[in-house]
Amino acid sequence: MNQHSDRVILGIDPGTNIMGYGLIALHGKEVRLVALGVIHLNKLRDQGLKLKKIFEKTLALIDEYHPDDIAIEAPFFGKNVQSMLKLGRAQGVAMAAGLYRTVPIFEYSPKKIKQSITGNGNASKEQVASMLETLLGYSEKPEYLDATDALGVALCHYFQNKNTSVNHKKAGTGWKAFVNAHPGRVVTK
Amino acid sequence: MNQHSDRVILGIDPGTNIMGYGLIALHGKEVRLVALGVIHLNKLRDQGLKLKKIFEKTLALIDEYHPDDIAIEAPFFGKNVQSMLKLGRAQGVAMAAGLYRTVPIFEYSPKKIKQSITGNGNASKEQVASMLETLLGYSEKPEYLDATDALGVALCHYFQNKNTSVNHKKAGTGWKAFVNAHPGRVVTK
Repeated sequence: MNQHSDRVILGIDPGTNIMGYGLIALHGKEVRLVALGVIHLNKLRDQGLKLKKIFEKTLALIDEYHPDDIAIEAPFFGKNVQSMLKLGRAQGVAMAAGLYRTVPIFEYSPKKIKQSITGNGNASKEQVASMLETLLGYSEKPEYLDATDALGVALCHYFQNKNTSVNHKKAGTGWKAFVNAHPGRVVTK
Repeated sequence: MNQHSDRVILGIDPGTNIMGYGLIALHGKEVRLVALGVIHLNKLRDQGLKLKKIFEKTLALIDEYHPDDIAIEAPFFGKNVQSMLKLGRAQGVAMAAGLYRTVPIFEYSPKKIKQSITGNGNASKEQVASMLETLLGYSEKPEYLDATDALGVALCHYFQNKNTSVNHKKAGTGWKAFVNAHPGRVVTK
């Protein structure tokens, strides 16, 4: 747990050309944006360098911000087997960074994220971005547009758990119970 | 480099149900089998635990045997996008272990491995296993049958480089040049 926050969530969107990340911190009922960024992988000439970059960046983010949970955007369908193999590898190295630092990993489908943020599983990227700006009180800069999905999955994880906490407050559940209930650490939503 | 060998190669076949591994050590012109094993992942109840196991086992093998290179069997085609995403993740976490310990990673397609071991890219698994027994002078035990591919990719990597060394001996190439020529560390053959 972060020293100054109740909880820190690292959201990651590990793609093969762009890796987006977004960090949020929870202070009681307040959610604050901590960091937002994009790594351009298409400049790197081979897949090995891309995977290395994703792994190193994820590990660096964990070591800098000490997130309590990692939330990953994980599409389950793609154009073809080739692209899914590449995407799986990108997700795998990001997950390995979390596994190595024993940070629990949760994954959410794009539809689940859109549903969670906007109430509509088929919302556009712009609608999600606009809602994130409202919820977190920041102005999105064009250069960080590709980090929207990463920020979205972090907030989605917060909402999922927040609801769990509220619904089962008297049963003594919440973050800890939620995480304990998922010993495999990689959880698909 | 291993203390008692010219070079140690770790071969890995990271599947979603079974992970096979095989280690060979090179002493001059002699190739020796060091270790061979199989991890059954289908007993683990979720994908997170499987990925964790693959990552931890690969890291443990690196730390125990100090391989100079890692060779991974990487099929490029699969049944469907779902299975390729899972396979990509399994490969990704195994690769991350190598990236983290800065061990160069090389990948070979199943066809390339069969071609390299038996001279026939369409050889059966039994033919590959039989050739490996002959080349490494050991008797394959049924419980390690699933490690055949892992051992095959390690030997394939040795053959690929051996030929490079022989062909370009006077140019001062060999292992070091071969590895230096692949700064991305993950190289597809």
